[in-house]
Amino acid sequence: MSKHFDLIKTDTATAARRGRLRTLHGVIETPIFMPVGTQGTVKAVTPAQLREIGSQIILGNTYHLNVRPGSELIKELGGLHRFMGWDGPILTDSGGFQVFSLAKLREVREDGVAFASQLDGAKLFLGPKEVMTIQANLGSDIAMVIDECPPWPCERDACARAVERSQRWAEQCKVVATDNGFLGSGHHVFGIAQGSTFDDLRRQAAEGLASLDLPGYAVGGVSVGEPEPEMLKQVGATTPFLSADKPRYTMGLGTPPQILKMIALGVDMFDCVMPTRVARNGLVFTPDGPMNLRNERFRTDTAPIVEGLDNYTARFSRAYLRHLVIAEEMLAGTLLSIHNLHFYLDLVAQARAHIEAGDYGPWHRAWIERYEAGAAARVS
Amino acid sequence: MSKHFDLIKTDTATAARRGRLRTLHGVIETPIFMPVGTQGTVKAVTPAQLREIGSQIILGNTYHLNVRPGSELIKELGGLHRFMGWDGPILTDSGGFQVFSLAKLREVREDGVAFASQLDGAKLFLGPKEVMTIQANLGSDIAMVIDECPPWPCERDACARAVERSQRWAEQCKVVATDNGFLGSGHHVFGIAQGSTFDDLRRQAAEGLASLDLPGYAVGGVSVGEPEPEMLKQVGATTPFLSADKPRYTMGLGTPPQILKMIALGVDMFDCVMPTRVARNGLVFTPDGPMNLRNERFRTDTAPIVEGLDNYTARFSRAYLRHLVIAEEMLAGTLLSIHNLHFYLDLVAQARAHIEAGDYGPWHRAWIERYEAGAAARVS
Repeated sequence: MSKHFDLIKTDTATAARRGRLRTLHGVIETPIFMPVGTQGTVKAVTPAQLREIGSQIILGNTYHLNVRPGSELIKELGGLHRFMGWDGPILTDSGGFQVFSLAKLREVREDGVAFASQLDGAKLFLGPKEVMTIQANLGSDIAMVIDECPPWPCERDACARAVERSQRWAEQCKVVATDNGFLGSGHHVFGIAQGSTFDDLRRQAAEGLASLDLPGYAVGGVSVGEPEPEMLKQVGATTPFLSADKPRYTMGLGTPPQILKMIALGVDMFDCVMPTRVARNGLVFTPDGPMNLRNERFRTDTAPIVEGLDNYTARFSRAYLRHLVIAEEMLAGTLLSIHNLHFYLDLVAQARAHIEAGDYGPWHRAWIERYEAGAAARVS
Repeated sequence: MSKHFDLIKTDTATAARRGRLRTLHGVIETPIFMPVGTQGTVKAVTPAQLREIGSQIILGNTYHLNVRPGSELIKELGGLHRFMGWDGPILTDSGGFQVFSLAKLREVREDGVAFASQLDGAKLFLGPKEVMTIQANLGSDIAMVIDECPPWPCERDACARAVERSQRWAEQCKVVATDNGFLGSGHHVFGIAQGSTFDDLRRQAAEGLASLDLPGYAVGGVSVGEPEPEMLKQVGATTPFLSADKPRYTMGLGTPPQILKMIALGVDMFDCVMPTRVARNGLVFTPDGPMNLRNERFRTDTAPIVEGLDNYTARFSRAYLRHLVIAEEMLAGTLLSIHNLHFYLDLVAQARAHIEAGDYGPWHRAWIERYEAGAAARVS
């Protein structure tokens, strides 16, 4: 396999890395945040608006897309990129996490997971062969292996079995993606390390996956209900054992401070529905913490949400955006999603610049201090 | 008052007119369609997207804006243009129509209408002074007088009283707009001719208003439940008695064929919520009639909604748009609203070109024939 990931710089005071990941649909500068497009659209935002705010790669959800409209149909229509009008890189998850979190009546077997569709109760099955075939149908630039995600908290024995099964599934995914030409044609497959709160199982999972020499690795089984310190501990217990020359990804995370802390632990890629989900509820991110635009004090506020953050939403006053939120206008969801996504994308762009400049450690601590002080002041 | 409306060409075979209307925020080429921005936003569409599809002027609803967020607040924030980020012309209605159609417990008095807010039941009052003050607060380029809109059907006596009261109110509106400098500073005030189904009352209303020498005139009291032939008859009974050298506007209308028929009757301006409202329900306009994207037959359809209609939505296949509609994604509302509004704007642009070319009569009849044949074929 050709070298697809360059480590441009590694921070000395932290484990932060500045990298560059090549995919079939373009180059990604890391660390990077990936807007989430669950059902073939980042909710309320057009692909053109995603480009305008500097999105480099977006995420699609295999579970949802396979249920509706179906991956066979998307393949017939030329793949997910063409279907949704996004010509940049796309990462898709395996669907496994949604099966473990959404689906009813699931049954974990050695060859995969049987479950009932949350839409119509239809009996479905996802195993290594299925998830790699579906993601090949979608034409993903980065496909994720299927893994068994144990709940939190989790018994050690059950977790050890999940780690071992996930390793076998990852091996089988690699075989499928090799045999069907997916890996050989330049698509990437990332492994996912489980291990819950057990440091030795985290290490076992990471080293087992690293031995497969996959194009990248994710830390899985985080953000499943555990407190933040526990989550960061698990990430920190995993990343050192994932190959240093491959990109690292924590799935489904997190708040702005969490992202900066995980970058300091050596994570390169992030995705999270939070910026778009809370936007649809009137909540926006600022360097001084999140801000609820429904608040009466924004009624006559002519300032943009954040001074100096140059995006389309910045043309509008907080007073107008508050009006749209309270009047339940669809444009509120669009404009606040643009702001929140741009806030995240700008944050990781700043992180990249500070890793390059060599001051990531003090910069990210100061950034978090200001953010948390502002958030605390708003609450009090 | 300086001359603000140029009649560039009048069709010989029909009463269609090609005109140019100057406002404080720019020139409007007529005939024109005005997207409706009820609550300070054209639903689901950004001002930038409105510009991209060639919107020349949009409409705001005085009734809604005055209830929330309030016209005093909008004035304090620099007027409606700045508030909503639209720097082109804005026409606002007087709020009277909404009082007659939405408000409960209304009482028509000689000085205006008392009613209860549909939001919180608060007691409100709209008369000539109020509606002209509110629209001055909004900074409307074109303000409408308050009128009494009788229901359909309507007794002759009640209609005659409504016409007479509407005439008195229009006179008072002109006095208010003259005294407060609104008219003198280049804002326009349009009168509204009522008269229901009574040709002589329509003529009386039109001639009465024409005597006020207002900058433009609307045909009111149409599209209130009457069948289309009756509606067209009422428009045709009114327009000949409105000044030929002033723009003419039918409020709240209509389907694409209705707009072409009213252009043939000498109407210059139109607004209607239909293109955006039905878009949010998955219905799109085509030259072969409306099309419901929920239909199974679009499941694998890779064509754009309408071949050759160049807008952002045209980048996406019917199959993708159908998926967004069925998955109830907000992007469906945005993309289908862009298409439907552009369809209307393109239709009036074609009408302008054919009036200039001198073949509006045969062109509009052929257009309607194709549209209605297509619609009939889809239903059968």
